[in-house]
Amino acid sequence: MNSRFGHHGGTLSLLLTMTVICCCRCMYCAATNPVESMRENVTKLSWEVDYLLWSPDCVEKVVIGINGAFPGPSIRGYVGNVLEVHLHNCLSTESVSIHWNGIRQIGTPWGDGVAGVTQCEIGSGETFIYRFKLDKAGTYSYYGFHGLQRSAGLYGMLIVEDEQKVPFEYDGEHSLLLSDWWHKSAYEQEVGLQAPLPQFRWVGEPQSLLINGRGRYDCTLVPKGGQQNSGDVKVCNVSNPQCSNPVVLRVERNKIYRLRIASVASISSLNFAVEKHKLMVVEADGNYVEPFEADDLDIYPGQTYSILLSTNQFAGRNYWVALNVRGRLPQTSPHLGILNYFPVPATNKPPFPPPKGPLWNDTAYSTAQSQLYKSREGYGKVPDKVQKQIILLNTQNTVDGKIKWAINIVSLALPTTPYLQALSYNIHDAYDCESPPVTYDQSYDIFSPPKNANVTLASMLYKLPFRHTIDIVLQNANTLTLRNSEINPWHLHGHDFWVVGQGLGKFDPEKDPKSYNLKNPPLRHTVPLFPYAWTTLRFKADNMGVWLLHSTVEPRFFMGMGIVLEEGTEWMLEEPPSCTMGCGLTKELANSLLKL
Amino acid sequence: MNSRFGHHGGTLSLLLTMTVICCCRCMYCAATNPVESMRENVTKLSWEVDYLLWSPDCVEKVVIGINGAFPGPSIRGYVGNVLEVHLHNCLSTESVSIHWNGIRQIGTPWGDGVAGVTQCEIGSGETFIYRFKLDKAGTYSYYGFHGLQRSAGLYGMLIVEDEQKVPFEYDGEHSLLLSDWWHKSAYEQEVGLQAPLPQFRWVGEPQSLLINGRGRYDCTLVPKGGQQNSGDVKVCNVSNPQCSNPVVLRVERNKIYRLRIASVASISSLNFAVEKHKLMVVEADGNYVEPFEADDLDIYPGQTYSILLSTNQFAGRNYWVALNVRGRLPQTSPHLGILNYFPVPATNKPPFPPPKGPLWNDTAYSTAQSQLYKSREGYGKVPDKVQKQIILLNTQNTVDGKIKWAINIVSLALPTTPYLQALSYNIHDAYDCESPPVTYDQSYDIFSPPKNANVTLASMLYKLPFRHTIDIVLQNANTLTLRNSEINPWHLHGHDFWVVGQGLGKFDPEKDPKSYNLKNPPLRHTVPLFPYAWTTLRFKADNMGVWLLHSTVEPRFFMGMGIVLEEGTEWMLEEPPSCTMGCGLTKELANSLLKL
Repeated sequence: MNSRFGHHGGTLSLLLTMTVICCCRCMYCAATNPVESMRENVTKLSWEVDYLLWSPDCVEKVVIGINGAFPGPSIRGYVGNVLEVHLHNCLSTESVSIHWNGIRQIGTPWGDGVAGVTQCEIGSGETFIYRFKLDKAGTYSYYGFHGLQRSAGLYGMLIVEDEQKVPFEYDGEHSLLLSDWWHKSAYEQEVGLQAPLPQFRWVGEPQSLLINGRGRYDCTLVPKGGQQNSGDVKVCNVSNPQCSNPVVLRVERNKIYRLRIASVASISSLNFAVEKHKLMVVEADGNYVEPFEADDLDIYPGQTYSILLSTNQFAGRNYWVALNVRGRLPQTSPHLGILNYFPVPATNKPPFPPPKGPLWNDTAYSTAQSQLYKSREGYGKVPDKVQKQIILLNTQNTVDGKIKWAINIVSLALPTTPYLQALSYNIHDAYDCESPPVTYDQSYDIFSPPKNANVTLASMLYKLPFRHTIDIVLQNANTLTLRNSEINPWHLHGHDFWVVGQGLGKFDPEKDPKSYNLKNPPLRHTVPLFPYAWTTLRFKADNMGVWLLHSTVEPRFFMGMGIVLEEGTEWMLEEPPSCTMGCGLTKELANSLLKL
Repeated sequence: MNSRFGHHGGTLSLLLTMTVICCCRCMYCAATNPVESMRENVTKLSWEVDYLLWSPDCVEKVVIGINGAFPGPSIRGYVGNVLEVHLHNCLSTESVSIHWNGIRQIGTPWGDGVAGVTQCEIGSGETFIYRFKLDKAGTYSYYGFHGLQRSAGLYGMLIVEDEQKVPFEYDGEHSLLLSDWWHKSAYEQEVGLQAPLPQFRWVGEPQSLLINGRGRYDCTLVPKGGQQNSGDVKVCNVSNPQCSNPVVLRVERNKIYRLRIASVASISSLNFAVEKHKLMVVEADGNYVEPFEADDLDIYPGQTYSILLSTNQFAGRNYWVALNVRGRLPQTSPHLGILNYFPVPATNKPPFPPPKGPLWNDTAYSTAQSQLYKSREGYGKVPDKVQKQIILLNTQNTVDGKIKWAINIVSLALPTTPYLQALSYNIHDAYDCESPPVTYDQSYDIFSPPKNANVTLASMLYKLPFRHTIDIVLQNANTLTLRNSEINPWHLHGHDFWVVGQGLGKFDPEKDPKSYNLKNPPLRHTVPLFPYAWTTLRFKADNMGVWLLHSTVEPRFFMGMGIVLEEGTEWMLEEPPSCTMGCGLTKELANSLLKL
């Protein structure tokens, strides 16, 4: 008998005395508290990711939930904590990964949660442990970063408390997780996006805007009739407790409230307003900003904010909290919540119409607001010397008849083998090894559709000189449609960056850097690139790892709108943990050792 | 510099001369011929599995297709051929596996395609090669064996031709792939099945019956109105070429046609009839049977047949081909195709109503028909000596408030680590190591709902004595509903079995074996177990591997209705190929070697 098969050689009694560990597929563990607190150095959370039939806007749909609920639990930790999330994937055939948006993953680049970049996807039935330090106070979020799983509802809020150094005071706090919501499944959206022209289908405008996973669709718009239980009829039930309450922010008069806001929207730029109340912006993307006051706030997918709201209005009534779509012709009803001046009953409707916010296509308004952000004094200083400049042209294109987005004429196709693991284990041929273009043909006319719409699909890597200061100039251009350029919010993983400049038209490498704000540019991780405009990000490439820079419009990234940066992985002292391996060539590598 | 990171140490020119292999995510390769022929010893097929928006019954839905079409390509090979399918999984987040239904996988147990049993699931972006011998002529099928991917449309036909020894003659051939079809997504079905009572939802009756992936739903039943592109409105378009033709079997008069029929239905037992034509059954489940004539044919999920049809009727008209639901109160319109006596135009409707088949609940009719099957003389002999008997009680139960199906009070929960790989690499704790019960408490009342509905979820393994002859008695019982027992079709992997006996009521181990047919019982791989009845299967445990025995009602297997058999894996000379590894504990094993 072959000794490899030792446990077959045992007697029955031997078999029966063996330790039996249940490796069966998921069963829900006891529901965990939706807000899981932690004050210890290491806090362990146990998550089960599974499908749920849920009605976020009163229309029932399959969503991806965590621990039996949608949205995912709010995590609250303290600076210096280590967060350890034991993620058990209970989806029967689908794999997942979760990105911790705004967490720089210093020293744990394999924890960034991008399947194909920093880890292998977490297979169904598998448990994966995310473990990283919460090293900076602020308001963050997390969301699925695999396929269109953000659109499928895999997201939540992550708040890191500052125990000592909060540079402003407040009496109370509310959290608002903003998202846009479709009745179409993520799969239907995927098929539409991947179909060649003319079958291509854009995901369309969302049916609802959600705050904290709740909204309300107008059930009279849902088709009626049809065969019962056929799946042809969408169930819309306004008395479903999963949707029936618009968001209610209960406040008392003459206090200051900190509203922590995170947008995990898939496509929608949003505008947030509270009737008759000014919004004092104090934090953006986990960084304190020089406070400024606004009537309403533009919020792009992936951004987070803290605003201070003074309840200094007449106390005998409630006020509207209004969330509107920006930058796209709105076809989605605003989300209307209530600022509830206790003890006024929360059900009392405000007597006047809700604030409408700026006109959807008033780009000048948005541009002006974006100029108001300055970093708060004492929180970091922008380097004034730059060692490398990369100019990235954002274009809409086609590849083999499919619509794609491209950066410098390359549309990103993530490899099956993640970059970080390929680099760490010296696996060749895992991705396209040519160097990607660091600028574009300066004769390109950014004000017209591309003359040649075809681009290349590739998985190239931008190798940044380690510890050097980098400028990345994002250059927007016309889409495939005449006289059309769209807002593109961009997010950098592993870093915050200083937004040193932005301007209309084509970036001029000679002239425009002279107008950079090197005094107090805002430090962010997600920034909008306005139509026909440019934006310059500056950061130090000092975080060993592989990091995405990409559009936070989820379908656009799905269509290739991103690049991959590599920094100092040759200096990493630790290899990525084995749990991040097991796909593509990392699987072959490991399995080949079994045969030795 | 660490040598692990060698290719970073290279110069730019070194980088540029490296071989660049595209490992990017899927792009459709050129569409392959739907019927792929092979006469060579090894035939390679290249498959890309991806979502498609498709309208099999004129209602648009996301389906899982192969090479851009639904259903999957028909494979046609010859006895002795090796089939090599390069399956590239283009689903963005979903893993797959494909079972080759009826192929015994002698010497290639890792090719059986059951995620969690014979292989790790094939992750998104990964390519997996199925390679096995087509060792026996017959009509087979293939389908997804992971989650509810059969219901999602991942299936096709597999025909192995006999070059010399076909024991009957015919002039022409038609293939019919039968399936049932829902408008609900597989995910919605999953959520309903996994929800605890009272949220539990059965998948319900199918909306349509398909032949060769086509049917026609009554579009007037689809709800109208709703917001455009919201996903709330199902598109139903009878002029969509994907659905608009019912099946047409073109024939000439006075010929004999071989109809190859395979059912990949998820839940529906079906009845197949051709108006005014007798069906001469000559093959069942890839084995020749003693020919017999029937007016119509009961076909259970997973079964395959060949019937000879003599076109001996009046040639001036067409005849109905009718497919009806059996054993469940029909809520699905029959599929009505056309037997087209050329040169009558195929569009000429037959002048009389279509055949209705037997009453849906006429179990006696089905039982009687199942008795007509005898193995064809000269094609194998049943062993008359049995070394081991296992009695399996089929019950409907609950586990933690969820509805499950169980065998001998154990509901199967497949482990994340596949059994075959765990055994081959001596991985402990991959599954529950106790021996599962080989019979049930004989005081159990099979005519009543279970007194204690609770059962255990487990992943135990039945170890069969290698090369011994085994009798498995399947015993049906009452479900959770009073006075209700349901037809359960059972399928054994890795084997054909002789159906040596069946009877009503509780199997009597003393008396009933005396009535076994040991002369010419039919050799099959899928057999119905009738309500309140028993069926005995006999086979020789001579195929090294790990094999499922399970209900072919897909949601019932999803709910635990199956057992896992192990045969002689200690004698296997080859280890499972590394591509079958990479999940659960096989991943940890391989990765641990990386750290050495």
